[in-house]
Amino acid sequence: MSSIVTLSSDFGPYYPAAMRGVLVRRGIEHVMDLTHELPAQDIIQSAFWLSKLIPYQPRAVHCIVVDPGVGGTRSVIIFRVGGHAIVCPDNGVGWPVAEALAGEERPEAFTFEHVPPESHTFHGRDVFAPVAAAIATVGIGQLERLPTVESTMVPTTLSLPTPDIGKNHLETEIIATDGFGTAITDTPGSRLPAVDSVEVAGQRVPVIDRYGAVEVGAPLVTVGSHGHVELAVNQGDGATHFDVDVGDVVRISWNG
Amino acid sequence: MSSIVTLSSDFGPYYPAAMRGVLVRRGIEHVMDLTHELPAQDIIQSAFWLSKLIPYQPRAVHCIVVDPGVGGTRSVIIFRVGGHAIVCPDNGVGWPVAEALAGEERPEAFTFEHVPPESHTFHGRDVFAPVAAAIATVGIGQLERLPTVESTMVPTTLSLPTPDIGKNHLETEIIATDGFGTAITDTPGSRLPAVDSVEVAGQRVPVIDRYGAVEVGAPLVTVGSHGHVELAVNQGDGATHFDVDVGDVVRISWNG
Amino acid sequence: MSSIVTLSSDFGPYYPAAMRGVLVRRGIEHVMDLTHELPAQDIIQSAFWLSKLIPYQPRAVHCIVVDPGVGGTRSVIIFRVGGHAIVCPDNGVGWPVAEALAGEERPEAFTFEHVPPESHTFHGRDVFAPVAAAIATVGIGQLERLPTVESTMVPTTLSLPTPDIGKNHLETEIIATDGFGTAITDTPGSRLPAVDSVEVAGQRVPVIDRYGAVEVGAPLVTVGSHGHVELAVNQGDGATHFDVDVGDVVRISWNG
Repeated sequence: MSSIVTLSSDFGPYYPAAMRGVLVRRGIEHVMDLTHELPAQDIIQSAFWLSKLIPYQPRAVHCIVVDPGVGGTRSVIIFRVGGHAIVCPDNGVGWPVAEALAGEERPEAFTFEHVPPESHTFHGRDVFAPVAAAIATVGIGQLERLPTVESTMVPTTLSLPTPDIGKNHLETEIIATDGFGTAITDTPGSRLPAVDSVEVAGQRVPVIDRYGAVEVGAPLVTVGSHGHVELAVNQGDGATHFDVDVGDVVRISWNG
Repeated sequence: MSSIVTLSSDFGPYYPAAMRGVLVRRGIEHVMDLTHELPAQDIIQSAFWLSKLIPYQPRAVHCIVVDPGVGGTRSVIIFRVGGHAIVCPDNGVGWPVAEALAGEERPEAFTFEHVPPESHTFHGRDVFAPVAAAIATVGIGQLERLPTVESTMVPTTLSLPTPDIGKNHLETEIIATDGFGTAITDTPGSRLPAVDSVEVAGQRVPVIDRYGAVEVGAPLVTVGSHGHVELAVNQGDGATHFDVDVGDVVRISWNG
Repeated sequence: MSSIVTLSSDFGPYYPAAMRGVLVRRGIEHVMDLTHELPAQDIIQSAFWLSKLIPYQPRAVHCIVVDPGVGGTRSVIIFRVGGHAIVCPDNGVGWPVAEALAGEERPEAFTFEHVPPESHTFHGRDVFAPVAAAIATVGIGQLERLPTVESTMVPTTLSLPTPDIGKNHLETEIIATDGFGTAITDTPGSRLPAVDSVEVAGQRVPVIDRYGAVEVGAPLVTVGSHGHVELAVNQGDGATHFDVDVGDVVRISWNG
């Protein structure tokens, strides 16, 4: 039986069906869509979301296509780590995912000499799905049996943003917002000191572990389900309340 | 073989993948997404849509997460009815669904003593998906075998809005709109008298059983596929035509 | 084992779940969503996208519901071609798909005498899904065994727009735009002469086979993954750059 293949992309409503069709036609029995609504051609936000979602997935070939350089010189890269494989353009998008799966392990990197694709503009269909199908068919542990795999390249790495942390404040970047309006920062929850409140954009805001601990409509700073510091409003829109968007840098300060 | 699990939420494009991953990793073979685009944190609209969609589903564990009170004191509740199980926050969202599945039967209600979750903000991933997986694994009919299930609580009920019906008119609330712009009211089709036309917002409009019975672009009142009275425009947008939105109350009157 | 059933519609976030439920309850084991975000009630754009996506699918019963005439007099039609079946309203939407699957073959057309549906407004759930399930159950090659199938009708055909091509220019219609902003024309790539650049809307633009051959933010004309001439911007939005939308006619001219 073939391995599970998961699909993630910024392709929106139409193109993913072609990728899925390619996989099913090649005999892959279990195809799971993770999301096809990643922010278009945004490698950093995509890497953030996928590094949070893929560690909850079963062992699988994870095919990730966020590929602003499609048709250019960037390579196809394959990471193998923790029993998973990641197939993606070598533009950094898969690296934080590989790191999130790695723990103490070190991801292995492979390239894939694929046949010239049908198009120069839709490698999700013409390159990445066929490569994912080939790996799922031989099995992730048998990757080396594919004659066209080599392992000599150095992958493009990508670091997600990190905060600038001082004694009584930190400067943190908004790395993503979600559909509820919560603004997710690049600060790991462990880096926030144990204080009851902080100052954000001139407002004194409680630091608390759940939205419902403040009144409906009131702001809070919390550590969200991704382990990052978030700016939120209970049953409201944190990004609007704090007037922030992805890429903005916010100063959070405290007494101490 | 495990039961089917269906997933419904207001989570949008990213978070559902984590729930699905949790289920597949726990051996659930058949996971079906119903929708993850329920109106954010809107219990009434979500209950409306799900009470219309879930009666068409196969017997399954239906995991519903519309949960504005996540991390607060609300419980997890499980309804069992008609061979289905519903797992959801005890905020009323599952009650109209249970009623829709019940017919003459009375839904059974259970609670679930779950382990403390990893997060206080994403119980879909950390509480509801694991509970749904546990039920699907033992089987819906074997719910009582789960040691942590108790059956002492009184569930939160929720009534969808109902119209105020007089002799020659009714006052009805717009309970939902769909992607075609049709405005769905809280009036059951059976409560509309057998008249050829009604007056809505100062307009005389035909009452008719199909959109195509009026000209393209013309308004009508019909009983839609959900069994509710709808304000529609043939191949057009009823909500815009009648200038109504969810929550508005509309007067419909007739001669007689 | 039943055939695969694929689902495509303009139904948006809620209604597809009812169709899928109907199929699974009738024992269909493999249901694949292609897209439910087709442009609402737009037969031409829907036919365009599906004629590009369905040739990449496995042999299946393809159930297509873009149905502005629901509840009117239009029939249900079934095409059989290349081992696939297409089930759709007889409004033309399935015809370009059948042609795309046909190659040298000629599609067979069938009608289906269905039982009166539960609603006049949701035939996706009440007519098309049951018909697709019946075909998937007997097998596409055994269509004639369904007692209610006849084959006497002449299907509604639909031609996608075609360009008006002169010696040194062509007039081409924008047939679709995608989520990246690329404007896809009705001109087959084979009809564009071998020139290095063309004039579009007063701009001299290179003709080139991949986005990355021009600078980020620069415009180009290319033949996309669908085989059509496209107006694009490398990592940008072609429709905005050229100020075009679906239905606009654009003049492309060249020296020669």
